[in-house]
Amino acid sequence: MPQYKAPLRDIRFLVHNVLDFPAHYSACGHAEVGADLIDPVLEEAARFCENVLAPTYRDGDETGTHMVNGRVVTPDSYKGAWQALTEAQWGAISCDPTFGGQGLPHSLGMIFHDMAESANQPWCALFTLTQGAIRAIEAHADDALKEKYLPKMVSGEWTGTMMLTESHAGSDLGLLRTRAEPAEDGSYRITGEKIFITWSDQDLTDNIIHLVLAKLPGAPAGPKGISLFLVPQVMVDDNGDLGARNSVQVAKIEEKMGLKSSPTGVINLDGAVGWLVGKPHNGLAAMFTMMNSARLDVAFEGLGLAELSRQGAVEYARERLQMRAPSGAVYPDKSADPIIVHPDVRRMLLTQKALVEGCRMLGYFTAMQLDVALHGEGEAQQKADQLVALLTPICKGFFTERGSEVADLGVQCFGGHGYIREHGMEQIVRDVRITRIYEGTNGIQAIDLMRRKVIGSDRRLLDALLAEINSFCNANRKHAVAGDLVAAAENVAAEWLALTDKLIEGGRLDPALPMSAAFEYLEYSGYACLAWCWARMAVTAADMLAGGQGDAVFLQAKLDTARFYMARVLPRTESLKISMLAGPETLSALTDEQFFMA
Amino acid sequence: MPQYKAPLRDIRFLVHNVLDFPAHYSACGHAEVGADLIDPVLEEAARFCENVLAPTYRDGDETGTHMVNGRVVTPDSYKGAWQALTEAQWGAISCDPTFGGQGLPHSLGMIFHDMAESANQPWCALFTLTQGAIRAIEAHADDALKEKYLPKMVSGEWTGTMMLTESHAGSDLGLLRTRAEPAEDGSYRITGEKIFITWSDQDLTDNIIHLVLAKLPGAPAGPKGISLFLVPQVMVDDNGDLGARNSVQVAKIEEKMGLKSSPTGVINLDGAVGWLVGKPHNGLAAMFTMMNSARLDVAFEGLGLAELSRQGAVEYARERLQMRAPSGAVYPDKSADPIIVHPDVRRMLLTQKALVEGCRMLGYFTAMQLDVALHGEGEAQQKADQLVALLTPICKGFFTERGSEVADLGVQCFGGHGYIREHGMEQIVRDVRITRIYEGTNGIQAIDLMRRKVIGSDRRLLDALLAEINSFCNANRKHAVAGDLVAAAENVAAEWLALTDKLIEGGRLDPALPMSAAFEYLEYSGYACLAWCWARMAVTAADMLAGGQGDAVFLQAKLDTARFYMARVLPRTESLKISMLAGPETLSALTDEQFFMA
Repeated sequence: MPQYKAPLRDIRFLVHNVLDFPAHYSACGHAEVGADLIDPVLEEAARFCENVLAPTYRDGDETGTHMVNGRVVTPDSYKGAWQALTEAQWGAISCDPTFGGQGLPHSLGMIFHDMAESANQPWCALFTLTQGAIRAIEAHADDALKEKYLPKMVSGEWTGTMMLTESHAGSDLGLLRTRAEPAEDGSYRITGEKIFITWSDQDLTDNIIHLVLAKLPGAPAGPKGISLFLVPQVMVDDNGDLGARNSVQVAKIEEKMGLKSSPTGVINLDGAVGWLVGKPHNGLAAMFTMMNSARLDVAFEGLGLAELSRQGAVEYARERLQMRAPSGAVYPDKSADPIIVHPDVRRMLLTQKALVEGCRMLGYFTAMQLDVALHGEGEAQQKADQLVALLTPICKGFFTERGSEVADLGVQCFGGHGYIREHGMEQIVRDVRITRIYEGTNGIQAIDLMRRKVIGSDRRLLDALLAEINSFCNANRKHAVAGDLVAAAENVAAEWLALTDKLIEGGRLDPALPMSAAFEYLEYSGYACLAWCWARMAVTAADMLAGGQGDAVFLQAKLDTARFYMARVLPRTESLKISMLAGPETLSALTDEQFFMA
Repeated sequence: MPQYKAPLRDIRFLVHNVLDFPAHYSACGHAEVGADLIDPVLEEAARFCENVLAPTYRDGDETGTHMVNGRVVTPDSYKGAWQALTEAQWGAISCDPTFGGQGLPHSLGMIFHDMAESANQPWCALFTLTQGAIRAIEAHADDALKEKYLPKMVSGEWTGTMMLTESHAGSDLGLLRTRAEPAEDGSYRITGEKIFITWSDQDLTDNIIHLVLAKLPGAPAGPKGISLFLVPQVMVDDNGDLGARNSVQVAKIEEKMGLKSSPTGVINLDGAVGWLVGKPHNGLAAMFTMMNSARLDVAFEGLGLAELSRQGAVEYARERLQMRAPSGAVYPDKSADPIIVHPDVRRMLLTQKALVEGCRMLGYFTAMQLDVALHGEGEAQQKADQLVALLTPICKGFFTERGSEVADLGVQCFGGHGYIREHGMEQIVRDVRITRIYEGTNGIQAIDLMRRKVIGSDRRLLDALLAEINSFCNANRKHAVAGDLVAAAENVAAEWLALTDKLIEGGRLDPALPMSAAFEYLEYSGYACLAWCWARMAVTAADMLAGGQGDAVFLQAKLDTARFYMARVLPRTESLKISMLAGPETLSALTDEQFFMA
């Protein structure tokens, strides 16, 4: 199986050279976080992910989690990993110091996620979900709930979940049936069945804090009648001591394609005791605090698993000997050349590299915006908010689609050995597949991008990003080495704008037009963003090379990968453009019965 | 799990209306096979696949095959299915009557494969591999071997395998180490280890006939020193009675991503008794008789699994209620609309339909050419041979790439339920994934197409197909209803020719150019072929509609799906075109170490 190595060189290049995190932290109220603090955090994170977490990934798939006497039992290796996480306080890295967090910038926590998702994605949901729950409680709960629950969630003594889905209500939460009846003491009794609840039970911590969507008596129908409740698995008394089990039972855990170690529960709430978080009927808004950050976390799941697959593929392609290069032996002393000499293998490895490193750059840029959105002020904060709103569905949709693609290429590079479980490459394909579905399918992300973010803002959110892109392009259009790459990024940004206008204007006449284009528009947006990211990386690399800074071998690879991206990946926009403008009648012609007639 | 229904309406439309199999059979020496024989065969095949085979697919995945005391044990349901197959003589359908076959056209057998692969692909390899072994023995073995082994293989009493791969020799068979020492009685003693041997052992038949690649003493190095041997699992005496076990042992069976019920063995040959098939050192040529038909069989695996996934997705999308159509409720009496009303779901379902039905048409056309290649004469036979040679790597590569795509879309249509094993959609993704790897990875298919078929024939094979395409386009360019679709097919065919010339000419100056374009060229070729197939289906459907023949609802769906294909799938050629002409330097810039630097 692939032996994960944290891509510290790539991460440092982004953090120090391309994006200048120290300057960014100075500007958004984190002046204390300079290079002297960032680098040790990165190195310690790398050590934890490589040495503690990565060795548990395969065990998680082989051993899996199981139900024993109505409780979920996790692999033994998971217990040590969780203990190490809490001891090192990785879960608390960007939490509020009021509740025991370290108060470091959100983006630094996300770089930790980047590495941790590569090391063991199914395990990671334990702490990313907990962090999401922490943020929802911080933002919406009253002080009593915060003081009672947050410190132990921040420390990692307790974990958190989000309970949204019911069997008939997946993408459509308006159909929820779970009910919450008020009790005399101000709490509620919650009854219903939830499905697809990730890490809804485990044997790693003493308690689990569930956030549950349910309907109050007399609530309006549809999404505006949903409220959010905090439901502990074990009751907590006023001294913080644990009491009786709450009525939250795991009815079963699902058998899945992947994520074998991450238990996905069907949950029965049978008059479970809970407390309202936020205002009545405002649960969906409160849940979206959690969901938006969860969507970015899922984007990093796609990226992290893609990184792992690409590392495995590169290593195998350097070692596996089959046939000779088309131009003759490159390694004449060996019985055959390593397969990395073959053009089609190089095409696959370069596609992986261009997508992974491009997505990482976009993900880190988005994480920076989140820092400002959370802790900035005034116009800067407003602009960052807009960028996060626009980039969240793009990152979630695009990184996870590419995650599946990159993982699939990793299997292909291994040939038949990729299909065998012991090599670990097929596990990545199975694990990454869920990322395109959960936290809103990518079809839902596409609708969110098109309807709420682009049309809903009358293009303002996109204008904010294009201002950023165009300002970079204006400054670097005549760059001696990378000018052509900057021009490619500029052209696709201009075309993105023109396509957006066509879809918005066309949508005024026929609202079906933008909806029929939504998925391809999301994909197009991702490729356009990556063109800008690669142009920025290329300019930085070229400048460093010219100035004799940094590792020339690494920097030259950046420049050449940027050229590969523009020449062989970015042209995918050509097909997407034609397809998205083909018109809604291409999708509406068939009646339901005509789709399949035996 | 999806309940397979044989798509008989689509199959009959191709066989009777578009491709006119009765006329084709008349022309190639099978005048006895008219519509009155074809239709009952199709219906009986559908009944067998729907009622006998399909119910075993899920059991195969859940139960799997296992080693017990050194032997492979299959699921119980497989025993009944195999018995039913042999009783109905489906394995013998297109075999030589000399050895007990039914002597029906090869293409009719392939239509049976089309259905059977949808019903249970991992099981199907049992009889497709047996048929491949039969053809290799028929073509290359001496009469004594034929008479001894073929009748029981044709009847299904014994099965066959192909033993090529060794751990260090996958795509590169020149590296084989298995040795064959001549014995005094004219037989050989074969020693070595083989891996990835499909259905190398089972408990369904009394004997298994292995075809093994090995090297004779003093054989030349590389691929021209390989010979083919017939190695029975159990020795057969001159009366045809079974004797002792041969020294062919299953060392282990692999744990795989999918194909859980199809045992993939590591095989030890320890002085196993075998007989030479064909001439010494000519084993690769003999094996290619088997391999070429196996490649088409694998193409049908991709198609068959895609059909199954699409049926599951359509059924689910008609039933699953979530949200309302963008234009307002379509089914106001229900709590929500079925998801088939949503544009993005329709995009996925239409993509599946366009790819599956397009590939079926191309696959059946190729099967017709195989009839003529096997049993035709003179110029017609020569032309059919050329078409089969060109279309085999296109079908293998393109149908299996699209098979993965269609199966993946099927999971996506199910949302979270697609990720749960019990719904059966994720099994299809895992099972179909191998088809892009075995019988030559799709990278190898691309090289075969580019180097051997296109450049090697100096374009003659392509010219043969383009003559076919252009003659159709010339006749139908001004078709009142489908003329624009014919024009689209004609344009992409012309562009395919121009691209081919660029790559051949460019390759004379720099042989790296066509190799750097090979994979995208294969993909492009597939889309270009499907444009022609869809134009042909559209013209036939339009003519039948105009003439009041056939089922108007079905025919109109054909026409509308053709329009969808041209508008939203065929544009993928635009990206492929740019990428394949980007030049070999886009792939050669990085040194091996630059692909990943931690």
